[in-house]
Amino acid sequence: MKVSVLFSSGKDSSLAALLLEPFFQVELVTINFGISATHEFAAESASKLGLPHIVLALPSSLVEEAASMLMEDGSPGRAINHLHHQALEAVCSQSDVHVVADGTRRDDRVPLLTLSQVQSLEDRHNIKYVRPLIGYGRSAIDALVRQHLEVVQAQSDTVDKADYEAELRAFIRKQYNEGESIVVRSFPEHIQSHVINRIYP
Amino acid sequence: MKVSVLFSSGKDSSLAALLLEPFFQVELVTINFGISATHEFAAESASKLGLPHIVLALPSSLVEEAASMLMEDGSPGRAINHLHHQALEAVCSQSDVHVVADGTRRDDRVPLLTLSQVQSLEDRHNIKYVRPLIGYGRSAIDALVRQHLEVVQAQSDTVDKADYEAELRAFIRKQYNEGESIVVRSFPEHIQSHVINRIYP
Repeated sequence: MKVSVLFSSGKDSSLAALLLEPFFQVELVTINFGISATHEFAAESASKLGLPHIVLALPSSLVEEAASMLMEDGSPGRAINHLHHQALEAVCSQSDVHVVADGTRRDDRVPLLTLSQVQSLEDRHNIKYVRPLIGYGRSAIDALVRQHLEVVQAQSDTVDKADYEAELRAFIRKQYNEGESIVVRSFPEHIQSHVINRIYP
Repeated sequence: MKVSVLFSSGKDSSLAALLLEPFFQVELVTINFGISATHEFAAESASKLGLPHIVLALPSSLVEEAASMLMEDGSPGRAINHLHHQALEAVCSQSDVHVVADGTRRDDRVPLLTLSQVQSLEDRHNIKYVRPLIGYGRSAIDALVRQHLEVVQAQSDTVDKADYEAELRAFIRKQYNEGESIVVRSFPEHIQSHVINRIYP
């Protein structure tokens, strides 16, 4: 059974893929909106994980929509959720995709689908949507990551990673006059991770 | 890292254990309240799964409490939840236990802990509580079960299984005059599963 795992090269989506690997044929899928070449970092991490990787190109207009949401809200929550929903819809629409997974965690607030959104996604596309980490808290995930992944951690703006935030930041910087200060103001500082290697037990 | 998996010999707790097996040292734990020897079926299934198994004895007074809840409500939801909470509290209190798991699923309504109950359990006992199946819907679980487990399915009252329901039914039958008709009336008919073998890929 093949599973398409939404993959940002961060530790959560990497660990999700590893947890599925013994039971599914894992294919990593990185979304790219054509704003910046973030999928190249993802391809590199995927090769270190030893897992097949594809890039799914989506229209940059989706990032434009997300940027408008961020400008309206002054914070990125709704914008990130919008991009995650659109990414899931796109992956689930592929004709050869029957099981889709991502790295959303129990303690995540964004991006996160409600139970009824999950069920609607599965019903509309006739697919199975699996969240291997949604049953794990922060400390359990950290323990597994330490055992299985070599990770670089740093402030979110300095990590080379293929998440929605990276292209959203890049778009706002290019598109708006005060782009840089909007980015600094709107994205809370937080530590991001980028997987650089796999630890085999 | 050892994980103690609450184990009823049903397909959900069995699959939860298999999903954890590549990443943890799995120990299956069956709760027994001293009402009937349901743990014997569990020991047999555990040996078929090739996983170490222990039985944790809890006082029958907990089933008595649960039976009162069922009599009050006319349905077993609150009673089953009560026994599950007490089982988790007991396992998490063991001094050599640091990671605890169970087979609760995304689409389960009972037994199920809220997010704040989960966090409280982890904080009070300083343990990690993991629910490997909570990110899986019914059809994904069914597909994995077909691949990995040989299962007997039948009406819940005719399956030899070590779940909370089995001892709760047995207690009500013994304790109350009209026990049999209370059981028939209070437990909705549903298909239960008992794992009889493991399928190695």
